[in-house]
Amino acid sequence: MHASRVARVAENLRRMNLKQALISAPASLFYLTGKWIAPGERMVALYINDQGDTRLYANRLFALRGNIDAELIEYDDTQDCVRILADGLQSGPIGIDKLWPSHFTIRLMEARGDIRPVVGSRCVDDARMHKDAQELQWMRESSHKNDQATMQTIARLHTGMSENEAAALHTGFANQLGSSKPSFEPLVCFGPNCAEPHHDTGADILKDGNSVILDVGLIWQDYCSDMTRTVFMGHASDEQKRVYDLVCAANAAGRAAVRPGAALRDIDHAARKVIEDAGYGEYFIHRTGHGIGLEVHEFPDVSASSEAIAEPGMTFSIEPGIYLPGRFGVRVEDLVAVTEDGCETLNAAPRELMIL
Amino acid sequence: MHASRVARVAENLRRMNLKQALISAPASLFYLTGKWIAPGERMVALYINDQGDTRLYANRLFALRGNIDAELIEYDDTQDCVRILADGLQSGPIGIDKLWPSHFTIRLMEARGDIRPVVGSRCVDDARMHKDAQELQWMRESSHKNDQATMQTIARLHTGMSENEAAALHTGFANQLGSSKPSFEPLVCFGPNCAEPHHDTGADILKDGNSVILDVGLIWQDYCSDMTRTVFMGHASDEQKRVYDLVCAANAAGRAAVRPGAALRDIDHAARKVIEDAGYGEYFIHRTGHGIGLEVHEFPDVSASSEAIAEPGMTFSIEPGIYLPGRFGVRVEDLVAVTEDGCETLNAAPRELMIL
Repeated sequence: MHASRVARVAENLRRMNLKQALISAPASLFYLTGKWIAPGERMVALYINDQGDTRLYANRLFALRGNIDAELIEYDDTQDCVRILADGLQSGPIGIDKLWPSHFTIRLMEARGDIRPVVGSRCVDDARMHKDAQELQWMRESSHKNDQATMQTIARLHTGMSENEAAALHTGFANQLGSSKPSFEPLVCFGPNCAEPHHDTGADILKDGNSVILDVGLIWQDYCSDMTRTVFMGHASDEQKRVYDLVCAANAAGRAAVRPGAALRDIDHAARKVIEDAGYGEYFIHRTGHGIGLEVHEFPDVSASSEAIAEPGMTFSIEPGIYLPGRFGVRVEDLVAVTEDGCETLNAAPRELMIL
Repeated sequence: MHASRVARVAENLRRMNLKQALISAPASLFYLTGKWIAPGERMVALYINDQGDTRLYANRLFALRGNIDAELIEYDDTQDCVRILADGLQSGPIGIDKLWPSHFTIRLMEARGDIRPVVGSRCVDDARMHKDAQELQWMRESSHKNDQATMQTIARLHTGMSENEAAALHTGFANQLGSSKPSFEPLVCFGPNCAEPHHDTGADILKDGNSVILDVGLIWQDYCSDMTRTVFMGHASDEQKRVYDLVCAANAAGRAAVRPGAALRDIDHAARKVIEDAGYGEYFIHRTGHGIGLEVHEFPDVSASSEAIAEPGMTFSIEPGIYLPGRFGVRVEDLVAVTEDGCETLNAAPRELMIL
C-alpha cells in the first residue's frame, strides 16, 4: 500500500463526511496498492475508512497472497463474496466506486439494510488528480514517446492508404518505443470523416486534399498519453488553412489560461472564445479537455460546467476542434500539467501547418 | 426493435414478478434494437415493462434519432439524465442491469425514494441464451472461421517464436477471413505457462518439447467463437500423451452428455469424472464451460453449481483441462449447441494428438 496515498484518501473521506468506502476501479487499486488486478466477472473491493484502515477483498484465483502488501481477505467461487464483504462494514453511509457493477451494490444493500450507498469514488479520484513528481515524469515520457510515434506516422502517410493502415503504423512505432499498448484505439480520420469527433477508424482511403486527424496515445510506465494533430494531404484550401490557424490559436489560448487557481471552466472559455469570436462557435461541439493519468479519461473535466480549480500536479488535455459536416475537420490536442506558476505543455510535436 | 425478443423479455419479467427493468448492456441493447451503442461514460438505458412497452433513454451525441427503431428519449450533456429517467418509472421494484455502473443506480434511488432496485438483467440474459436459427448459423460460421484461423496458426508455429507472435498470427488469419476483431485477446501459452489457465500471453519463446495452448476466438456477424487446441513441439513425453488423451476423453464425455433436459451441472460432472477417475481431479481447477453468443461469456454456466437445464438453442463451451504447475498443461475446448435431440459441436478442428 502507498501509505501517503491512503492517508490522502482517508483525509478526503473525512472532508466528504464519509466514514467508509469501497474502491474497485482497477486504476484506483493500482494507485493505492501498486498492483493491477483484473477481476473479470468476480468481485474485488478495497475497504477503506476515514482513519486510513484498509482491507482488500479478493478471489483466491487472483493469486494475490504473498504478492501484495495489503490486508487480504480472500474468498473462493463456492462462497458468497458479497456476504463476506457485508459483514465487515459499519452501519450508515458507505461510498461506492462509481463504476462498480450495480449487482454488487444491490446485493450489498440486500445483505445489510442498515447501510446506505452513496457515490464515493471522488475520495480516490481527487487524490489521483494530483500527480507527484514521479507520476509527472512518466506522463512527460509517455507524451514524448507519443510525439515521436505520431511524427513517424505522419512521415509515412500517403494517398491510397486506409485509416486502419495509418492507425497500425502508430501502434507499431509505439511498440518500437517500448509501449506495449495504446492508451485507446487510435482514432484516424480522413477528409469528411474528420468532421465526426467520434468517427470509427475504418477502411476509407486517403485522397489528395483530405484533412487527416490523428488522435492517438500510448501507455508508458502505466501512464497514458493522448495527442491530436491535423495535417493536410497534397494541398490545403484557404478555408482549411484559416480553420487550422484558428484551432491552433484556440489551443494556445487554452494552454495560456492554465495556471494554479484558474477555474477549469475559464480555461474552456479561453479556448472556446477564440473559435466563437471567429464565427465558428457552433462547430466546436465538445468540451475543451479531460483529465488523464493512469486512465485516459480522469478528473478534472475541462468544460463550461466544470467546478474544478487548477492546482499544481493536475494533468489534462486542451483539445479544441472545428467540425464542418460533410467537408473536413480540425482538432489540435496537447496534454498540459499545471505547475507551481503556470503550465507545462507535455507534448512537443509541432503545431505548424503541415501539408504533406 | 425485435418484437418477438421484446415479448420474450416481457414474459420473463412477468415470470420474475417484476413490472419494469432498465437494460444497459451493449450486447443486450443490440439484441433488442439491432444497434450497437457505445455510451462511454454517458448513460444509456432501455426501459421495458412487463407489457412489452419500451423507451430508450440516450444522449443526443449517440446520434440515434432517425437511426433506430425505438421510442427515443434524448437528453444532452447540460441535463440531469438520471432525473429524466427517474421521472418515467413506476413505484416499487425495478430490475437493474447487472453491470450498470453503480453511480446511476445510486442516483436513481436518491431521485426516487419509492423505487427499489433489484438485479434484473436475467430477463434479457435468459432470452439471449436461446439462439434462433439465424443466430445459430452465425455461431456456426464464426466457429468454422475460428477453426480455419487456428489451423493456419498451428501450421506456422516454430521454435524460437514468441507467444505474442503466435497470437498475432491468429489475429491476422482471422482478419483475412473477414473477422474485424477477436472475441477476446488471443491466449497463447508455451511450456510451463500452459499450467496457468489465465496466463498473460507474452514474450516467452517456443522451445522443443513444449506444450502449446492456443485459446482463441473471433467475431463474425456480431457472434463470438472460442476454441482451445493444445499441440506439442518436436515431441511429447508419455505423460504428456496420457494427459492429452485424458483431456480429449473428458471433452468428448462432456459433449456426449449434452442433450435437452440435461442439467448443466451433470454435463460438468461428466467431463470432470473422466479426469477425476484417472487421478488428476485436483489439476482441473475451473468450471467445464460457459455460455457464449454476442458476448464471449454469457449464461448458462456449465459448472457444479449451475442450476440451468439444457434447452435447444443454447450454445456453450466444453473446455476441460489439466494443469501441472511448473511443467505443462492441456486444455481442449469446443463450442456446442443444444439441438432438439442432442448436441451439435460447432468446431471441426481436429482433436487428434498433434506433434509439430
